[in-house]
Amino acid sequence: MADPASAPRIDVPELTAFLDGHYADIRQLTRKHLAEHPEVLRDQIEMDPDDFRERVLEVVQEFAATGMLGVGFPEEYGGGGDIGASIAGFETLALGDLSVLVKVGVQFGLFGGAILHLGSRAHHEAYLPDLVSGKLLGCFAMTESGHGSDVQQLGTTATYDPEAGEFVLSTPYDLARKDYIGNAACHAHAAVVFAQLVIKGESEGVHAFVVPIRDEAGKVLPGVRIEDDGAKMGLSGVDNGRIWFDGVRVPRANLLNRYADVSDGGEYSSDIENRSRRFFTMLGTLVQGRVSVGGAGINAAKVALVLAVRYSLMRRQFGDPSADEEELLLDYGMHQRRLFPRLARTYAMHFAQETLVAELHEVFSTQAPVGDEAAEHRRRALESRAAGTKAMGTWLATDVIQECREACGGNGYLAANRFAALKADTDVFTTFEGDNHVLLQLVAKGLLTDYQSNFEELDQLGMVRFVSELAVETVVERTSAHTLLERVKDWLPGSDDPADDESGLRDPSYHLAMLRWREEHLISGAARRLKRGMDRKMPPVVVFSRVQDHVIACARASVEREVLETFVAKLEELPGDSAHRVAMTLLCDLYALSVIEDDKGWFMEHGRLTAERSKAVTREIGRLCRRIRPIALDLVNAFGIPEELLQAEMLVPLSGMPEHDG
Amino acid sequence: MADPASAPRIDVPELTAFLDGHYADIRQLTRKHLAEHPEVLRDQIEMDPDDFRERVLEVVQEFAATGMLGVGFPEEYGGGGDIGASIAGFETLALGDLSVLVKVGVQFGLFGGAILHLGSRAHHEAYLPDLVSGKLLGCFAMTESGHGSDVQQLGTTATYDPEAGEFVLSTPYDLARKDYIGNAACHAHAAVVFAQLVIKGESEGVHAFVVPIRDEAGKVLPGVRIEDDGAKMGLSGVDNGRIWFDGVRVPRANLLNRYADVSDGGEYSSDIENRSRRFFTMLGTLVQGRVSVGGAGINAAKVALVLAVRYSLMRRQFGDPSADEEELLLDYGMHQRRLFPRLARTYAMHFAQETLVAELHEVFSTQAPVGDEAAEHRRRALESRAAGTKAMGTWLATDVIQECREACGGNGYLAANRFAALKADTDVFTTFEGDNHVLLQLVAKGLLTDYQSNFEELDQLGMVRFVSELAVETVVERTSAHTLLERVKDWLPGSDDPADDESGLRDPSYHLAMLRWREEHLISGAARRLKRGMDRKMPPVVVFSRVQDHVIACARASVEREVLETFVAKLEELPGDSAHRVAMTLLCDLYALSVIEDDKGWFMEHGRLTAERSKAVTREIGRLCRRIRPIALDLVNAFGIPEELLQAEMLVPLSGMPEHDG
Repeated sequence: MADPASAPRIDVPELTAFLDGHYADIRQLTRKHLAEHPEVLRDQIEMDPDDFRERVLEVVQEFAATGMLGVGFPEEYGGGGDIGASIAGFETLALGDLSVLVKVGVQFGLFGGAILHLGSRAHHEAYLPDLVSGKLLGCFAMTESGHGSDVQQLGTTATYDPEAGEFVLSTPYDLARKDYIGNAACHAHAAVVFAQLVIKGESEGVHAFVVPIRDEAGKVLPGVRIEDDGAKMGLSGVDNGRIWFDGVRVPRANLLNRYADVSDGGEYSSDIENRSRRFFTMLGTLVQGRVSVGGAGINAAKVALVLAVRYSLMRRQFGDPSADEEELLLDYGMHQRRLFPRLARTYAMHFAQETLVAELHEVFSTQAPVGDEAAEHRRRALESRAAGTKAMGTWLATDVIQECREACGGNGYLAANRFAALKADTDVFTTFEGDNHVLLQLVAKGLLTDYQSNFEELDQLGMVRFVSELAVETVVERTSAHTLLERVKDWLPGSDDPADDESGLRDPSYHLAMLRWREEHLISGAARRLKRGMDRKMPPVVVFSRVQDHVIACARASVEREVLETFVAKLEELPGDSAHRVAMTLLCDLYALSVIEDDKGWFMEHGRLTAERSKAVTREIGRLCRRIRPIALDLVNAFGIPEELLQAEMLVPLSGMPEHDG
Repeated sequence: MADPASAPRIDVPELTAFLDGHYADIRQLTRKHLAEHPEVLRDQIEMDPDDFRERVLEVVQEFAATGMLGVGFPEEYGGGGDIGASIAGFETLALGDLSVLVKVGVQFGLFGGAILHLGSRAHHEAYLPDLVSGKLLGCFAMTESGHGSDVQQLGTTATYDPEAGEFVLSTPYDLARKDYIGNAACHAHAAVVFAQLVIKGESEGVHAFVVPIRDEAGKVLPGVRIEDDGAKMGLSGVDNGRIWFDGVRVPRANLLNRYADVSDGGEYSSDIENRSRRFFTMLGTLVQGRVSVGGAGINAAKVALVLAVRYSLMRRQFGDPSADEEELLLDYGMHQRRLFPRLARTYAMHFAQETLVAELHEVFSTQAPVGDEAAEHRRRALESRAAGTKAMGTWLATDVIQECREACGGNGYLAANRFAALKADTDVFTTFEGDNHVLLQLVAKGLLTDYQSNFEELDQLGMVRFVSELAVETVVERTSAHTLLERVKDWLPGSDDPADDESGLRDPSYHLAMLRWREEHLISGAARRLKRGMDRKMPPVVVFSRVQDHVIACARASVEREVLETFVAKLEELPGDSAHRVAMTLLCDLYALSVIEDDKGWFMEHGRLTAERSKAVTREIGRLCRRIRPIALDLVNAFGIPEELLQAEMLVPLSGMPEHDG
């Protein structure tokens, strides 16, 4: 059914190199180490959870010993001094067992990241060498049972005792217990604890403290109580737990004091005057956690796609009785429709993630002085982009893995075919490191306020008040989409000529114009609704509640536009007449048209798509799927997932099985 | 934010009784037994899978001993003689552990159902009493590794040996091994095996045979090989396995011979001449399996909704700093948007399932003679409706459970809060008992051919050829939607008056008209495209592939229309001025408008919705959500899920937690 003759010829290793980009070395190194431990995938299925936790720790420590996990830390502490590489390596771990990935993330990203970014030199010297080598195991105790999204309201207290020169950590009520803390139930010896810093009876806001929680023998220290969070949906190799503190004392030096300090006598000081801003500056340094999780989601989706596409090229069912063989699943139009737009979206998100990591690397590799407004704006934009990419990348994983599992029928349900763990382990990605809906609200806040200097202080109601005081035009003019508005206006009417329906459907300027117009229109509409609600004297909480879905739609639209821009720009890196350019263009067009099709109702509501053209978009998607069919296997193979990790039972041919069709 | 004063007052037990309907007794009995075994939910989390399999068997046998699982079998064999009640009881089991449910389904629905419906009196006498009491455990060996959806192509053979008067069962190649067979790995002593009946070297097609597979001591019999399918995503309490047969001999009498028989000398005979039709008549008798799974999916979705709604009425986050308390999650507009349309859809599917069960009960409680065309047409319509309800009911479960789990944040990921098992256990529902996409194709075939007498013979390509030979008008006139077309035409233009946008948006005639028009238009469009493809001399396999998504869209549209019709009719059973009528009408309107909104792009493409009216639909959905907010807790409580089964850790208030808001 496909016409392989006219299909672009893919050089798989070369395309892998293109996807790997600047960080090919660390990605290949990570693949090599993963390929040496394919048995972890079976261990996850076969081992008792307690044993598997120990197994995962072993693997993490073995990986740590190679030095590959510490590349994000300064060289003087045994690291590699390359933040971008550390993320690229981390996300590549998602091709293997995800408990290993999350355990690495807790130790090196969260625990290590907090000490690196919130601590000063003394902390670095004290902790980083052992931390990087995997000798000092730690956890990141921020979330509480009562507060996950709104971390400014954490209940744990760290009260300064000037007599002793110590902080006293306490959990005042059960809702303030630390919860879901990875590494806490078994392995962590130290915790970075986020708590209200209380001096002379007043809270100075949430700060981070290094708190020992186990002794050398692994026994929980006095004053600390730890409970296992118990069985989880997935990630059985990660020991999540709850922690209570009952008057636990740590020296004054254990405050991670990069942004604020307490003197021996109990005087609080900080370079950042505004308390809320100070807190969000601290939080902002931890953005790499979100970037890492988003990347992990995108890479987990790749595993699902390789499995489903390969299976669909082995499995036959029904078909023309007069033919020798039944029909391959992938030759069914519906099967293509289920898999290829998701393949395109995964490629698109891969490039978006690559760009985000590059930006993260740049921002974090240059130390800007406190108060540099341009640098701060750039940081906020990075945080916003990280939030959006994390949300969309992890929802991508949930969606792609589910569809791929269903596309493999009963085989998809067996643990031996990897979907069980893929699905269960990634499920939490959508709500940890920031709930996706809350993250999209953060993105929207950035769009609506253009990262004002008081950006961080603005909670959702602050944002409502802020926006309501601006003219809508002001909001709109500040959006990044706005600069291209004129072009959009010029473009759309002409291309909507009903006599010329299918023309320009694959023109990237058309795609970009559509997504930019949508973003800008949504933003101005949301601003207008927020203002109107306030003008009518409705309580801000009600105004926000009613406009919330609109606000979130702004964020989605913005991320999708940004992802498309990145993909289109990426195409330019390939020679214009190359097969890879042709193939990537097919995927980019499919991504763009799928986004438009998914929201065609909105575009029609807003006069940006005629009925005829909308139908033409759907037809074009069908055509693109048929063109991708002959290269689908190459496109998933180019993800470079080691064969050792793809030993799914369903991909082993059984007798009676027809020949494999490439 | 909500205005409880104006909300309808729900009497929860009374609403439960309304939902339980005709089968309230068996539902209550099942709830009672489930409530006596809440520990199974913990056992699933805590037990080793091998032990849990034994535990599940124990519970099933205990339930069997009460007689409640055999209600679908004739009274003379220890049953209750009520098919409808047996399904109602079965689907209620989905409120508890789902391994128990599936184990029951295998034993009583599949194994028992096959013997009841495909066997004759001798088989009933020989097997049913022990089967109903749970003494004789069996399995249903239809699916093979190579064929799940296209079961006419099964590879297992049962060759008649006239000398011995025996059938010899063989697995000719590995792809023909039986696979995913529940109860096979450990517990079944007998199997109903589907195999090609071979006489004198010729296959008479697939037939069912009773084959002993284990001896009294539980040892696998000679010639039978069984392997465990190994770990699965979920349903760890069900022992799925693979079976190979190597010359296993069974007496001639072990052919389940209700529809076809073999004489001692090896003469084949059947009242149904056409082979394919014979096979599908046999298959058709097994429709209750699909009805059961669809019902189970709908009930599992209810559990997720109760948990998420209750949690959202305890959990607070962010909100107005000047207020005493943070904001309840359920007071956020987006949270309502995420949960309430799904709540409405679950109610809608509940009533659709109730109607389907009533129809199944009637059809199966009246024995129609072979050849009664009207009865056969009714049976095919039932099969089609069962297929559609199963597909939509199980996708509902996947979607609702996922959204509810995400709506509970980190808590949703902990096994103690039930989502882990709910999600993993129900996941297979979308692909077992018929892959959902294949089932929707079956629905579409019915729509496109009006269940022609040769309906069953038509595979997908036969359907393409059949439709291509009809005039499109013929296809359309036969659709059930067509009878109301005139009304639709009259209705739509008037209500689309832009000056009167929000009028009639809650008029059920408008909703019905929209869904009927869509169904009919999709069917005629699909017929036209199939014809056009054939006219252009494209191979039928290519024609089908290209039109496949359109064909499946027909089926979805048809099910959604049918579900709405059922819901609207159901409202009539409630007094016009009752609070319950008001509440159910809110849900019915929300269901209808959500369906329209989800497909608003299509309606606009086809001139059935103006841009203004489309926006009005979205606004109305927001209003309906706000009206449902004060009664949401009552609406989920009315599902009548025993409190013993809702002991989720996250619903236990912790100190510091604000008061529960009803």
